[in-house]
Amino acid sequence: MTATTVTRPRVLIVGCGFGGLEAAKAFRRADVDVTVVDRTNHHLFQPLLYQVASAALTAPAIAAPVRHILRKQANVTTLLGEVKTIDVAARQALLVDGAALPYDHLIVAAGAVTSYFGRDEWAQHAPGLKTLQDAFEIRRRVLMAFEHAEREADPDARAAWLTFVVIGGGPTGVEMAGTLAEIAKRTLPGEFRHIRPEEARVLLVEGGDRVLGMMPAKLGESAGAQLRALGVELQLNSRVTAIDATGVAISVAGESEPRRIATQCVIWGAGVAGAPLGAKLAQAAGIALARGGRVPVEPDLSVAGHPEISVIGDLAQAMSHAPGTEPQPVPGVSPAAKQMGRAAATNILRRIRAEATQPFRYRDYGTLATIGRNSAVVDLASPLGPIRFSGKLAWLFWLFAHIYFLIDFRAKAVVLFDWATAYWTEQRYARVVAEATRD
Amino acid sequence: MTATTVTRPRVLIVGCGFGGLEAAKAFRRADVDVTVVDRTNHHLFQPLLYQVASAALTAPAIAAPVRHILRKQANVTTLLGEVKTIDVAARQALLVDGAALPYDHLIVAAGAVTSYFGRDEWAQHAPGLKTLQDAFEIRRRVLMAFEHAEREADPDARAAWLTFVVIGGGPTGVEMAGTLAEIAKRTLPGEFRHIRPEEARVLLVEGGDRVLGMMPAKLGESAGAQLRALGVELQLNSRVTAIDATGVAISVAGESEPRRIATQCVIWGAGVAGAPLGAKLAQAAGIALARGGRVPVEPDLSVAGHPEISVIGDLAQAMSHAPGTEPQPVPGVSPAAKQMGRAAATNILRRIRAEATQPFRYRDYGTLATIGRNSAVVDLASPLGPIRFSGKLAWLFWLFAHIYFLIDFRAKAVVLFDWATAYWTEQRYARVVAEATRD
Repeated sequence: MTATTVTRPRVLIVGCGFGGLEAAKAFRRADVDVTVVDRTNHHLFQPLLYQVASAALTAPAIAAPVRHILRKQANVTTLLGEVKTIDVAARQALLVDGAALPYDHLIVAAGAVTSYFGRDEWAQHAPGLKTLQDAFEIRRRVLMAFEHAEREADPDARAAWLTFVVIGGGPTGVEMAGTLAEIAKRTLPGEFRHIRPEEARVLLVEGGDRVLGMMPAKLGESAGAQLRALGVELQLNSRVTAIDATGVAISVAGESEPRRIATQCVIWGAGVAGAPLGAKLAQAAGIALARGGRVPVEPDLSVAGHPEISVIGDLAQAMSHAPGTEPQPVPGVSPAAKQMGRAAATNILRRIRAEATQPFRYRDYGTLATIGRNSAVVDLASPLGPIRFSGKLAWLFWLFAHIYFLIDFRAKAVVLFDWATAYWTEQRYARVVAEATRD
Repeated sequence: MTATTVTRPRVLIVGCGFGGLEAAKAFRRADVDVTVVDRTNHHLFQPLLYQVASAALTAPAIAAPVRHILRKQANVTTLLGEVKTIDVAARQALLVDGAALPYDHLIVAAGAVTSYFGRDEWAQHAPGLKTLQDAFEIRRRVLMAFEHAEREADPDARAAWLTFVVIGGGPTGVEMAGTLAEIAKRTLPGEFRHIRPEEARVLLVEGGDRVLGMMPAKLGESAGAQLRALGVELQLNSRVTAIDATGVAISVAGESEPRRIATQCVIWGAGVAGAPLGAKLAQAAGIALARGGRVPVEPDLSVAGHPEISVIGDLAQAMSHAPGTEPQPVPGVSPAAKQMGRAAATNILRRIRAEATQPFRYRDYGTLATIGRNSAVVDLASPLGPIRFSGKLAWLFWLFAHIYFLIDFRAKAVVLFDWATAYWTEQRYARVVAEATRD
């Protein structure tokens, strides 16, 4: 017998969010060498990131090291690194530190970043919520605002510290506004001597005429009513025109003058765009970038002219191809990213076997959004038509669904324990700001 | 009936570590107005800080908001702020942001900071372990070292990434060295493809001829043997002469040339000094600062010439006054800080009642140090003489003692759960680095 070196196909996966992780797992039994490269050392369960920002959960409850998750999959190598660009001709990814990672098949799952629609100067005043660092920064700003208010003698300045403005009425904005109202009205009362935290104002600014515009009208209106019951002021039909160190200006439909809101804490939930790597990939591959910095993909999730490159998740502008219907845009939600991850991996394995690839089909099982304690909306797809409900039952459904999808058993137990104690005590366990005072 | 305004004595407590918190609680039933001011928003259970640094515990498990702990004590106001100096003549503390906090009685419990004995340029290469930020920085450096090693092709550079040097064989150094060896040999194996984490070297550099010099020789030797069993290399009779970006130089007793150790991760456990506020207070009060930046105090813990000012905890150079024996120096440990907090508060109440103050007496109940899983040393004081033991029983004793002293029931439950799962799985739950790659 003569030993011969057989080179197995090299699959490179850039990014280990929901899409990248699912793709890596889909190669579990495949005869390929998989390399996963990510800018951070952890997979993040983003749907619960707002709970880290609002001090209800600790970071490790919703984040686990990528290499730990994939440790038993022998054909996977996990690397920490940031991909700067793709050398499409040489088939390699170039890292910011100069290293090159060659590939035969590439899956780009670099996700989305907070977008200020060209107003990048707003970023310093209104952090978004995409990374753990974002969550820590929001947690710091929220908790420090109450601390500053406690020490502030001037009533106007104190009121500004106690005014919280959330921009954007999508799921992130709704969750943040609801949780901020709960912090002010349920967690902090009784702990201050010079302010009444329950008098804090929480405003949710939304351009449309209701929150959760992607959900059916009735559920969006229910969510709005539930927010109001928590004490959130809904500022609908309103667009932000300025954000600076002292507050925000909003233009309300039907009013000629913009309104000015004095605040020291603004949270941005109004928009995301594809990660910058998407633009570089599109340029290298000679295709035009789609709206929102997304990369348009073929029905099988590959890039036009480059069957060896797939783009998935929030970075992809993909269409769902169900038999007998018109292609529909795939939404930027985690179940879609996971389904794309599996589909891209399966198509790569088909290519390796010289089989035809299959068009991607998104299966929508429904949408959930939570507003606060005992408060959520659920819109489930079923063969018998949509199932929609809201309130406490929806909240319980949301709660167990999120625990179910958490990455491992330990995190499930930890989050369940944290939520149970938070429910009974109305306290928030993670009210810790690591930094000392800044001056 | 005519309402008259009675001004209650104002007690200001600077710092909310073990000493400051215990002092605040000691005024629970007293007719005084207490203000607690701290640079951070949390009380930190420092004895377990190394477990945050080593990814075994999350920060909120060992830190709780000061204002939450003291919320039910109506005579306490908690403020976030950093005291810059004390205006002894005007009886007020001046904050870095310009505010002034007046007092009738002052307790300074500002604690200690990492000290490099005049070699402050070492700080950037060898973080100490006094704050949550320190712990996160050490966690980041340790976990990133393995990530860099995995991507490093050059064997020498790779070996440097896999070499960890802990400076100082006191409790902090022993705990860090033991826990680093466990991370390398038990937590990480099987998760990398290009390195074997279990081949990492952990060196503990100590100037004396054994570790835990403050404990009886037999226990120190036992701790050394337990460290060796974990795979730690003890570098005794050795002093650090240089630390830079590529490694450390150590001078070993009996050797003419210093040895050079190539490493990318150095942890400083060799020394602390009183917080800088101590020097400013000493200057303002017209007294000389003691060794290690500590403020010498009278037998009743007040500052000479200023009976209205007490200094407690790690910032104080205090003596214990037991009847019939010579005064003994009080060690810089948390039970001593707590006892001083109670004593200073009691003496202030005596002064308010125009009674004589009492000299401080430190009651030493013993010393514990842990080395790793199933591995610790215990030295208890008892009326029948010292009780000393080591190994698994000592470790269980250490474990339950630390859970017992944790600040609240929730933290006790969380830490117990975290330790139980860590014990069975040998995993570390908090292996999350919030930051993306740095370049």
